[in-house]
Amino acid sequence: MNEQELHGLVDAVLGRLFVEIEASGRHVHVTKEQALRLFGHPLTPKRPLSQPGQFLSNERVTILGPKGEFQNVAVLGPERKEGQVEISLTDARTLGIDAPVRMSGNVSNTPGAILSGSHGQVALPQGVIAARRHIHLPPEDAVRFGVKDKQVVRLRAFTERPVVFEDVVVRVSPDFAPAVHLDYDEANACGFRKGDLGRIMP
Amino acid sequence: MNEQELHGLVDAVLGRLFVEIEASGRHVHVTKEQALRLFGHPLTPKRPLSQPGQFLSNERVTILGPKGEFQNVAVLGPERKEGQVEISLTDARTLGIDAPVRMSGNVSNTPGAILSGSHGQVALPQGVIAARRHIHLPPEDAVRFGVKDKQVVRLRAFTERPVVFEDVVVRVSPDFAPAVHLDYDEANACGFRKGDLGRIMP
Repeated sequence: MNEQELHGLVDAVLGRLFVEIEASGRHVHVTKEQALRLFGHPLTPKRPLSQPGQFLSNERVTILGPKGEFQNVAVLGPERKEGQVEISLTDARTLGIDAPVRMSGNVSNTPGAILSGSHGQVALPQGVIAARRHIHLPPEDAVRFGVKDKQVVRLRAFTERPVVFEDVVVRVSPDFAPAVHLDYDEANACGFRKGDLGRIMP
Repeated sequence: MNEQELHGLVDAVLGRLFVEIEASGRHVHVTKEQALRLFGHPLTPKRPLSQPGQFLSNERVTILGPKGEFQNVAVLGPERKEGQVEISLTDARTLGIDAPVRMSGNVSNTPGAILSGSHGQVALPQGVIAARRHIHLPPEDAVRFGVKDKQVVRLRAFTERPVVFEDVVVRVSPDFAPAVHLDYDEANACGFRKGDLGRIMP
């Protein structure tokens, strides 16, 4: 086996097992109507995110809770059907909002918050969650990994403070790029640094 | 086997495997001299902590970093030979201090911070760390668990968001009560609630 073949073999093996980890900071999703009320105009893209079609907007909001606030919080686009605030449980404590751990989009019976933008304010009646950790996979990678949409797996983080995260939800869609999404509590708990990889455990 | 015997068996099995988890919030240790400068008097005990002889003091400090500060931070007693600030990596980001993950007491070549108390300020030249996760065990429990002082083990947290923490250091001393100590990043990453248990993994 020459060096090129060896690299190919290593890539094949690693490709079957590893997914790059990304740490999601606190952020907000808004509806078109909420964007108009907060900013006076629709969201404007600043730069694309790892998931195709998703972008970081130029717009920023303040999240206000009973015990504290976070200023200058990222708003991700495009606009959605329902507003949502994704924070860590550490953030939840700071805000004084008892955010449950939920999959993105599953916001029934969750607490709300006040959002304040450059143009106005929005009282979000619900939608404040700590995002449940998950893995985005396109269908071809899901097949290679031997996992299915909504499957719950364990993921070992190859990081400074290694951790095996259990209860990680796999999400499969042709719209996805492969990525593990952790919040900052999880990222810090494993000592994550950009570029670190996770392995789906058998 | 009657009910009492069953309970005894369960306790025996659980006792061999499980240790109660505790989440350590940000806190500070100071020397006697630093206590005098910060408060004008030695630390005064407010209530005992789980580890014998250790106490939460009535005294509180502000930790000041280049990017932020934390007010009303707990000071633990008794006084130590060297000052130390234990924060989460989330806190480190807020303060703007690049705290390394270290065992408590191992503070050489770590960053410092300013502490401000009711009586005065102290410039801590070093000692700001994120405490490496660890398990306190008295010698008899260490024998039962089959682990030794300084051994590195894995620990499964039986929590809402279950996690296997790797790289957990066992510390054994007759002065210790059994307890797993996590910081708030780690506690939140596993959805810890008071009373949750961890199991040392074989």
